[in-house]
Amino acid sequence: MDGLYIDMPLRYFLDKLAGKSPEPGGGSVAALTGALAAGLVSMVASLTFDKDKYQNVQAQIRSLLAASETLRIQMQELVQKDTEAYGALSEVYKMPRSTDTEKTLRTTRLQEALKKACQVPYEIAEKSLEIAKLARQAAEIGNTAAISDAGVAVLLANTCVRSAALNVRINLNSIKDETFINITWTRIQGILEQSANIERVVMEFTYKKMG
Amino acid sequence: MDGLYIDMPLRYFLDKLAGKSPEPGGGSVAALTGALAAGLVSMVASLTFDKDKYQNVQAQIRSLLAASETLRIQMQELVQKDTEAYGALSEVYKMPRSTDTEKTLRTTRLQEALKKACQVPYEIAEKSLEIAKLARQAAEIGNTAAISDAGVAVLLANTCVRSAALNVRINLNSIKDETFINITWTRIQGILEQSANIERVVMEFTYKKMG
Repeated sequence: MDGLYIDMPLRYFLDKLAGKSPEPGGGSVAALTGALAAGLVSMVASLTFDKDKYQNVQAQIRSLLAASETLRIQMQELVQKDTEAYGALSEVYKMPRSTDTEKTLRTTRLQEALKKACQVPYEIAEKSLEIAKLARQAAEIGNTAAISDAGVAVLLANTCVRSAALNVRINLNSIKDETFINITWTRIQGILEQSANIERVVMEFTYKKMG
Repeated sequence: MDGLYIDMPLRYFLDKLAGKSPEPGGGSVAALTGALAAGLVSMVASLTFDKDKYQNVQAQIRSLLAASETLRIQMQELVQKDTEAYGALSEVYKMPRSTDTEKTLRTTRLQEALKKACQVPYEIAEKSLEIAKLARQAAEIGNTAAISDAGVAVLLANTCVRSAALNVRINLNSIKDETFINITWTRIQGILEQSANIERVVMEFTYKKMG
Protein backbone atom coordinates (compact mmCIF):
# COMPACT_ATOMS: atom_id res chain seq x y z
CA MET A 1 0.00 0.00 0.00
CA ASP A 2 1.26 3.42 -0.93
CA GLY A 3 -0.63 5.69 1.47
CA LEU A 4 -2.56 5.76 4.72
CA TYR A 5 -5.77 3.74 4.86
CA ILE A 6 -7.52 6.85 6.13
CA ASP A 7 -6.78 8.65 2.84
CA MET A 8 -8.10 5.79 0.69
CA PRO A 9 -11.74 5.46 -0.35
CA LEU A 10 -13.90 3.73 2.23
CA ARG A 11 -14.69 1.06 -0.41
CA TYR A 12 -10.94 0.31 -0.75
CA PHE A 13 -10.60 -0.24 3.00
CA LEU A 14 -13.62 -2.56 3.07
CA ASP A 15 -12.46 -4.54 0.00
CA LYS A 16 -8.95 -4.90 1.46
CA LEU A 17 -10.42 -5.95 4.81
CA ALA A 18 -12.52 -8.70 3.18
CA GLY A 19 -9.57 -10.09 1.20
CA LYS A 20 -6.90 -12.74 1.77
CA SER A 21 -4.42 -10.45 3.56
CA PRO A 22 -4.65 -10.57 7.38
CA GLU A 23 -4.23 -6.79 7.41
CA PRO A 24 -6.17 -4.64 7.90
CA GLY A 25 -7.78 -6.94 10.47
CA GLY A 26 -9.66 -6.83 13.75
CA GLY A 27 -7.21 -4.40 15.38
CA SER A 28 -7.50 -1.75 12.68
CA VAL A 29 -11.26 -2.21 12.58
CA ALA A 30 -11.36 -1.73 16.37
CA ALA A 31 -9.51 1.59 15.98
CA LEU A 32 -11.84 2.67 13.16
CA THR A 33 -14.83 1.81 15.36
CA GLY A 34 -13.36 4.04 18.07
CA ALA A 35 -12.84 6.84 15.54
CA LEU A 36 -16.50 6.52 14.46
CA ALA A 37 -17.59 6.69 18.13
CA ALA A 38 -15.52 9.85 18.68
CA GLY A 39 -16.89 11.30 15.43
CA LEU A 40 -20.46 10.81 16.65
CA VAL A 41 -19.63 12.47 19.99
CA SER A 42 -18.22 15.41 18.01
CA MET A 43 -21.40 15.55 15.91
CA VAL A 44 -23.63 15.66 19.00
CA ALA A 45 -21.41 18.43 20.43
CA SER A 46 -21.49 20.31 17.09
CA LEU A 47 -25.31 20.08 17.02
CA THR A 48 -25.46 21.53 20.56
CA PHE A 49 -22.95 24.29 19.96
CA ASP A 50 -24.34 27.88 19.78
CA LYS A 51 -27.91 26.71 20.39
CA ASP A 52 -29.96 29.03 22.69
CA LYS A 53 -31.72 26.08 24.30
CA TYR A 54 -28.33 24.73 25.48
CA GLN A 55 -26.88 28.12 26.55
CA ASN A 56 -25.90 26.92 30.03
CA VAL A 57 -23.69 24.07 28.80
CA GLN A 58 -21.73 25.88 26.06
CA ALA A 59 -18.42 25.83 27.96
CA GLN A 60 -18.72 22.07 28.61
CA ILE A 61 -19.74 21.46 24.99
CA ARG A 62 -16.62 23.27 23.79
CA SER A 63 -14.39 21.08 26.00
CA LEU A 64 -16.31 17.98 24.93
CA LEU A 65 -15.78 18.76 21.24
CA ALA A 66 -12.07 19.45 21.74
CA ALA A 67 -11.61 16.20 23.65
CA SER A 68 -13.55 14.06 21.16
CA GLU A 69 -11.73 15.54 18.18
CA THR A 70 -8.34 14.86 19.80
CA LEU A 71 -9.30 11.25 20.46
CA ARG A 72 -10.76 10.86 16.97
CA ILE A 73 -7.45 11.91 15.38
CA GLN A 74 -5.53 9.55 17.68
CA MET A 75 -7.85 6.68 16.80
CA GLN A 76 -7.48 7.42 13.09
CA GLU A 77 -3.70 7.13 13.56
CA LEU A 78 -4.12 3.84 15.43
CA VAL A 79 -5.89 2.32 12.38
CA GLN A 80 -2.51 2.54 10.64
CA LYS A 81 -0.34 1.76 13.67
CA ASP A 82 -2.07 -1.59 14.12
CA THR A 83 -1.27 -2.66 10.55
CA GLU A 84 2.35 -1.53 11.07
CA ALA A 85 2.72 -3.61 14.24
CA TYR A 86 1.27 -6.55 12.34
CA GLY A 87 3.71 -5.95 9.47
CA ALA A 88 6.68 -5.91 11.88
CA LEU A 89 5.50 -9.18 13.41
CA SER A 90 5.18 -10.80 9.97
CA GLU A 91 8.78 -9.80 9.15
CA VAL A 92 10.05 -11.49 12.32
CA TYR A 93 8.14 -14.68 11.50
CA LYS A 94 10.12 -14.82 8.22
CA MET A 95 13.51 -14.69 10.04
CA PRO A 96 15.74 -17.75 9.47
CA ARG A 97 15.89 -20.46 12.11
CA SER A 98 18.46 -22.95 10.76
CA THR A 99 21.11 -22.52 13.45
CA ASP A 100 20.79 -22.20 17.23
CA THR A 101 22.02 -18.58 17.04
CA GLU A 102 19.36 -17.77 14.46
CA LYS A 103 16.70 -19.46 16.56
CA THR A 104 17.67 -17.52 19.69
CA LEU A 105 17.71 -14.21 17.82
CA ARG A 106 14.36 -14.95 16.18
CA THR A 107 12.75 -15.87 19.53
CA THR A 108 14.01 -12.64 21.16
CA ARG A 109 12.79 -10.48 18.27
CA LEU A 110 9.47 -12.33 18.16
CA GLN A 111 8.81 -11.68 21.85
CA GLU A 112 9.61 -7.98 21.34
CA ALA A 113 7.34 -7.75 18.28
CA LEU A 114 4.51 -9.56 20.08
CA LYS A 115 4.70 -7.12 23.00
CA LYS A 116 4.53 -4.24 20.54
CA ALA A 117 1.59 -5.91 18.76
CA CYS A 118 -0.15 -6.04 22.19
CA GLN A 119 0.55 -2.42 22.99
CA VAL A 120 -1.34 -1.02 20.00
CA PRO A 121 -4.71 -2.66 20.85
CA TYR A 122 -4.05 -1.87 24.53
CA GLU A 123 -3.77 1.81 23.61
CA ILE A 124 -6.92 1.51 21.46
CA ALA A 125 -8.84 0.08 24.46
CA GLU A 126 -7.53 2.78 26.82
CA LYS A 127 -8.50 5.60 24.48
CA SER A 128 -11.87 4.10 23.69
CA LEU A 129 -12.73 4.05 27.38
CA GLU A 130 -12.14 7.83 27.31
CA ILE A 131 -14.44 8.09 24.27
CA ALA A 132 -17.13 6.12 26.17
CA LYS A 133 -16.90 8.71 28.98
CA LEU A 134 -17.32 11.52 26.43
CA ALA A 135 -20.32 9.70 24.90
CA ARG A 136 -21.89 9.63 28.38
CA GLN A 137 -21.43 13.40 28.63
CA ALA A 138 -22.87 13.86 25.12
CA ALA A 139 -25.96 11.86 26.14
CA GLU A 140 -26.33 13.88 29.35
CA ILE A 141 -25.84 17.45 28.13
CA GLY A 142 -26.05 17.23 24.33
CA ASN A 143 -28.90 18.17 21.99
CA THR A 144 -31.84 15.88 22.81
CA ALA A 145 -32.64 15.56 19.09
CA ALA A 146 -29.31 13.73 18.70
CA ILE A 147 -29.71 11.42 21.72
CA SER A 148 -29.77 8.28 19.54
CA ASP A 149 -26.40 9.34 18.09
CA ALA A 150 -24.93 9.61 21.60
CA GLY A 151 -26.32 6.13 22.24
CA VAL A 152 -24.70 4.74 19.08
CA ALA A 153 -21.44 6.42 20.14
CA VAL A 154 -21.34 4.57 23.48
CA LEU A 155 -22.17 1.24 21.79
CA LEU A 156 -19.32 1.74 19.33
CA ALA A 157 -16.88 2.88 22.03
CA ASN A 158 -17.58 -0.22 24.14
CA THR A 159 -17.32 -2.49 21.08
CA CYS A 160 -13.99 -0.88 20.30
CA VAL A 161 -12.77 -1.70 23.84
CA ARG A 162 -14.01 -5.31 23.59
CA SER A 163 -12.55 -5.77 20.08
CA ALA A 164 -9.20 -4.37 21.17
CA ALA A 165 -9.23 -6.71 24.18
CA LEU A 166 -9.60 -9.72 21.84
CA ASN A 167 -6.55 -8.51 19.92
CA VAL A 168 -4.54 -8.05 23.12
CA ARG A 169 -5.53 -11.55 24.25
CA ILE A 170 -4.57 -13.33 21.02
CA ASN A 171 -1.11 -11.72 21.11
CA LEU A 172 -0.64 -12.37 24.84
CA ASN A 173 -1.16 -16.07 24.12
CA SER A 174 2.22 -16.25 22.33
CA ILE A 175 4.11 -14.17 24.91
CA LYS A 176 6.33 -15.96 27.44
CA ASP A 177 6.80 -13.10 29.95
CA GLU A 178 4.27 -14.02 32.69
CA THR A 179 4.59 -10.66 34.46
CA PHE A 180 3.82 -8.80 31.25
CA ILE A 181 0.82 -11.09 30.62
CA ASN A 182 -0.60 -10.64 34.12
CA ILE A 183 -0.17 -6.87 34.27
CA THR A 184 -1.57 -6.31 30.78
CA TRP A 185 -4.58 -8.60 31.15
CA THR A 186 -5.50 -7.33 34.63
CA ARG A 187 -5.49 -3.77 33.28
CA ILE A 188 -7.54 -4.74 30.21
CA GLN A 189 -10.12 -6.41 32.44
CA GLY A 190 -10.42 -3.19 34.44
CA ILE A 191 -10.94 -1.20 31.24
CA LEU A 192 -13.51 -3.73 29.97
CA GLU A 193 -15.46 -3.49 33.23
CA GLN A 194 -15.52 0.32 33.33
CA SER A 195 -16.50 0.53 29.68
CA ALA A 196 -19.32 -2.04 30.06
CA ASN A 197 -20.70 -0.09 33.04
CA ILE A 198 -20.72 3.16 31.08
CA GLU A 199 -22.47 1.45 28.16
CA ARG A 200 -25.18 0.05 30.45
CA VAL A 201 -25.84 3.40 32.14
CA VAL A 202 -25.86 5.41 28.89
CA MET A 203 -28.14 2.94 27.09
CA GLU A 204 -30.70 3.02 29.92
CA PHE A 205 -30.50 6.80 29.95
CA THR A 206 -30.79 7.03 26.13
CA TYR A 207 -33.97 4.93 25.93
CA LYS A 208 -35.41 6.91 28.87
CA LYS A 209 -34.60 10.25 27.21
CA MET A 210 -36.12 9.07 23.91
CA GLY A 211 -39.31 8.24 25.82
CA MET B 1 -22.18 15.89 -1.68
CA ASP B 2 -21.32 14.86 -5.24
CA GLY B 3 -20.71 11.10 -4.89
CA LEU B 4 -21.32 8.11 -2.68
CA TYR B 5 -19.76 8.20 0.79
CA ILE B 6 -18.28 4.80 0.07
CA ASP B 7 -16.19 6.27 -2.77
CA MET B 8 -14.85 9.14 -0.63
CA PRO B 9 -11.71 8.89 1.49
CA LEU B 10 -12.32 7.41 4.93
CA ARG B 11 -11.02 10.68 6.41
CA TYR B 12 -13.74 12.63 4.55
CA PHE B 13 -16.48 10.40 5.98
CA LEU B 14 -15.12 10.80 9.52
CA ASP B 15 -14.72 14.58 9.18
CA LYS B 16 -18.24 14.94 7.78
CA LEU B 17 -19.60 12.71 10.55
CA ALA B 18 -18.01 14.88 13.25
CA GLY B 19 -19.37 18.13 11.77
CA LYS B 20 -22.50 20.24 12.22
CA SER B 21 -24.61 18.36 9.67
CA PRO B 22 -26.85 15.63 11.16
CA GLU B 23 -25.91 13.40 8.21
CA PRO B 24 -24.12 11.10 8.03
CA GLY B 25 -25.31 10.16 11.51
CA GLY B 26 -25.96 7.11 13.69
CA GLY B 27 -27.91 5.27 10.99
CA SER B 28 -25.16 5.44 8.38
CA VAL B 29 -22.56 4.56 10.99
CA ALA B 30 -24.65 1.53 11.98
CA ALA B 31 -24.65 0.37 8.33
CA LEU B 32 -20.89 0.95 8.07
CA THR B 33 -20.38 -1.08 11.26
CA GLY B 34 -22.38 -3.90 9.66
CA ALA B 35 -20.27 -3.66 6.49
CA LEU B 36 -17.09 -3.90 8.62
CA ALA B 37 -18.51 -6.97 10.40
CA ALA B 38 -19.29 -8.65 7.05
CA GLY B 39 -15.83 -7.68 5.76
CA LEU B 40 -14.19 -9.42 8.73
CA VAL B 41 -16.28 -12.55 8.15
CA SER B 42 -15.12 -12.51 4.51
CA MET B 43 -11.51 -12.13 5.67
CA VAL B 44 -11.76 -15.14 8.01
CA ALA B 45 -13.33 -17.14 5.15
CA SER B 46 -10.60 -15.94 2.74
CA LEU B 47 -7.90 -17.00 5.23
CA THR B 48 -9.49 -20.47 5.48
CA PHE B 49 -10.00 -20.94 1.75
CA ASP B 50 -7.73 -23.49 0.00
CA LYS B 51 -5.92 -24.38 3.23
CA ASP B 52 -5.11 -28.10 3.62
CA LYS B 53 -5.80 -28.01 7.34
CA TYR B 54 -9.39 -26.92 6.61
CA GLN B 55 -9.98 -29.28 3.67
CA ASN B 56 -13.21 -30.73 5.08
CA VAL B 57 -14.98 -27.35 5.34
CA GLN B 58 -14.10 -25.87 1.92
CA ALA B 59 -17.66 -26.11 0.55
CA GLN B 60 -19.08 -24.34 3.62
CA ILE B 61 -16.33 -21.72 3.47
CA ARG B 62 -17.22 -20.94 -0.14
CA SER B 63 -20.90 -20.45 0.79
CA LEU B 64 -19.89 -18.38 3.83
CA LEU B 65 -17.75 -16.07 1.71
CA ALA B 66 -20.48 -15.64 -0.91
CA ALA B 67 -23.06 -14.83 1.78
CA SER B 68 -20.84 -12.38 3.66
CA GLU B 69 -19.82 -10.57 0.47
CA THR B 70 -23.48 -10.19 -0.58
CA LEU B 71 -24.38 -8.74 2.81
CA ARG B 72 -21.32 -6.49 2.81
CA ILE B 73 -22.36 -4.92 -0.51
CA GLN B 74 -25.92 -4.46 0.76
CA MET B 75 -24.66 -2.82 3.96
CA GLN B 76 -22.40 -0.51 1.96
CA GLU B 77 -25.50 0.59 0.00
CA LEU B 78 -27.42 1.14 3.24
CA VAL B 79 -24.77 3.68 4.38
CA GLN B 80 -26.05 5.89 1.56
CA LYS B 81 -29.73 4.94 1.79
CA ASP B 82 -29.88 6.12 5.41
CA THR B 83 -28.60 9.59 4.49
CA GLU B 84 -31.14 9.72 1.63
CA ALA B 85 -34.04 8.86 3.93
CA TYR B 86 -32.81 11.56 6.30
CA GLY B 87 -32.59 14.04 3.41
CA ALA B 88 -36.18 13.30 2.35
CA LEU B 89 -37.36 13.83 5.94
CA SER B 90 -35.54 17.19 6.14
CA GLU B 91 -37.28 18.34 2.95
CA VAL B 92 -40.71 17.56 4.43
CA TYR B 93 -39.87 19.49 7.61
CA LYS B 94 -39.30 22.55 5.39
CA MET B 95 -42.81 22.32 3.82
CA PRO B 96 -45.06 25.36 4.45
CA ARG B 97 -47.68 25.19 7.18
CA SER B 98 -49.49 28.55 6.95
CA THR B 99 -52.93 27.25 5.92
CA ASP B 100 -54.90 24.25 7.16
CA THR B 101 -54.52 22.56 3.74
CA GLU B 102 -50.73 23.02 3.92
CA LYS B 103 -50.67 21.69 7.47
CA THR B 104 -52.67 18.58 6.53
CA LEU B 105 -50.47 17.86 3.51
CA ARG B 106 -47.28 18.37 5.55
CA THR B 107 -48.51 16.02 8.30
CA THR B 108 -49.35 13.29 5.78
CA ARG B 109 -46.00 13.60 4.02
CA LEU B 110 -44.15 13.72 7.35
CA GLN B 111 -45.73 10.48 8.51
CA GLU B 112 -44.80 8.81 5.21
CA ALA B 113 -41.19 10.08 5.40
CA LEU B 114 -40.88 8.97 9.05
CA LYS B 115 -42.00 5.45 8.15
CA LYS B 116 -39.44 5.38 5.39
CA ALA B 117 -36.77 6.69 7.80
CA CYS B 118 -37.68 3.76 10.09
CA GLN B 119 -37.50 1.17 7.35
CA VAL B 120 -33.84 1.81 6.52
CA PRO B 121 -32.47 1.11 10.04
CA TYR B 122 -34.97 -1.76 10.30
CA GLU B 123 -33.39 -3.30 7.20
CA ILE B 124 -29.91 -2.64 8.64
CA ALA B 125 -30.85 -4.52 11.84
CA GLU B 126 -32.35 -7.45 9.90
CA LYS B 127 -29.29 -7.84 7.68
CA SER B 128 -26.88 -7.47 10.58
CA LEU B 129 -28.55 -10.36 12.39
CA GLU B 130 -27.70 -12.44 9.30
CA ILE B 131 -24.10 -11.20 9.52
CA ALA B 132 -23.98 -12.20 13.20
CA LYS B 133 -25.01 -15.74 12.17
CA LEU B 134 -22.22 -15.80 9.57
CA ALA B 135 -19.73 -14.57 12.20
CA ARG B 136 -20.76 -17.52 14.39
CA GLN B 137 -20.02 -19.88 11.49
CA ALA B 138 -16.68 -18.14 10.86
CA ALA B 139 -15.75 -18.65 14.54
CA GLU B 140 -16.79 -22.30 14.40
CA ILE B 141 -15.22 -23.49 11.15
CA GLY B 142 -12.80 -20.70 10.18
CA ASN B 143 -9.01 -20.54 10.47
CA THR B 144 -8.15 -20.67 14.19
CA ALA B 145 -5.40 -18.09 13.66
CA ALA B 146 -8.15 -15.59 12.79
CA ILE B 147 -10.47 -16.44 15.70
CA SER B 148 -10.14 -12.97 17.24
CA ASP B 149 -11.30 -11.48 13.92
CA ALA B 150 -14.43 -13.67 13.99
CA GLY B 151 -14.98 -12.43 17.56
CA VAL B 152 -14.65 -8.79 16.48
CA ALA B 153 -17.08 -9.50 13.62
CA VAL B 154 -19.80 -10.71 16.00
CA LEU B 155 -19.27 -7.73 18.33
CA LEU B 156 -19.64 -5.33 15.39
CA ALA B 157 -22.68 -7.16 13.98
CA ASN B 158 -24.48 -6.98 17.32
CA THR B 159 -23.54 -3.32 17.76
CA CYS B 160 -24.91 -2.66 14.29
CA VAL B 161 -28.23 -4.26 15.32
CA ARG B 162 -28.38 -2.27 18.57
CA SER B 163 -27.43 1.00 16.83
CA ALA B 164 -30.03 0.47 14.11
CA ALA B 165 -32.62 -0.24 16.82
CA LEU B 166 -31.92 3.16 18.41
CA ASN B 167 -32.52 4.79 15.04
CA VAL B 168 -35.77 2.89 14.53
CA ARG B 169 -36.91 3.92 18.03
CA ILE B 170 -36.21 7.65 17.63
CA ASN B 171 -38.21 7.74 14.38
CA LEU B 172 -41.06 5.63 15.80
CA ASN B 173 -41.45 8.25 18.52
CA SER B 174 -42.82 10.76 15.98
CA ILE B 175 -45.08 8.26 14.19
CA LYS B 176 -48.82 8.30 14.96
CA ASP B 177 -49.76 4.89 13.47
CA GLU B 178 -49.94 2.68 16.59
CA THR B 179 -50.15 -0.57 14.59
CA PHE B 180 -47.00 0.31 12.66
CA ILE B 181 -45.23 1.19 15.92
CA ASN B 182 -46.22 -2.04 17.65
CA ILE B 183 -45.40 -4.35 14.75
CA THR B 184 -42.05 -2.65 14.04
CA TRP B 185 -40.89 -2.50 17.65
CA THR B 186 -41.95 -6.08 18.47
CA ARG B 187 -39.96 -7.31 15.47
CA ILE B 188 -36.93 -5.21 16.39
CA GLN B 189 -36.98 -6.61 19.93
CA GLY B 190 -36.95 -10.12 18.47
CA ILE B 191 -33.94 -9.26 16.31
CA LEU B 192 -32.16 -7.64 19.28
CA GLU B 193 -32.69 -10.74 21.41
CA GLN B 194 -31.45 -13.19 18.74
CA SER B 195 -28.43 -11.05 18.00
CA ALA B 196 -27.51 -10.65 21.68
CA ASN B 197 -27.71 -14.44 22.14
CA ILE B 198 -25.41 -15.06 19.17
CA GLU B 199 -22.92 -12.50 20.49
CA ARG B 200 -22.86 -14.14 23.93
CA VAL B 201 -22.32 -17.64 22.51
CA VAL B 202 -19.63 -16.57 20.00
CA MET B 203 -17.72 -14.51 22.56
CA GLU B 204 -17.60 -17.42 25.04
CA PHE B 205 -16.51 -19.71 22.22
CA THR B 206 -13.88 -17.23 20.95
CA TYR B 207 -12.17 -16.83 24.35
CA LYS B 208 -12.30 -20.63 24.80
CA LYS B 209 -10.74 -21.26 21.38
CA MET B 210 -8.00 -18.66 22.04
CA GLY B 211 -7.21 -20.57 25.25
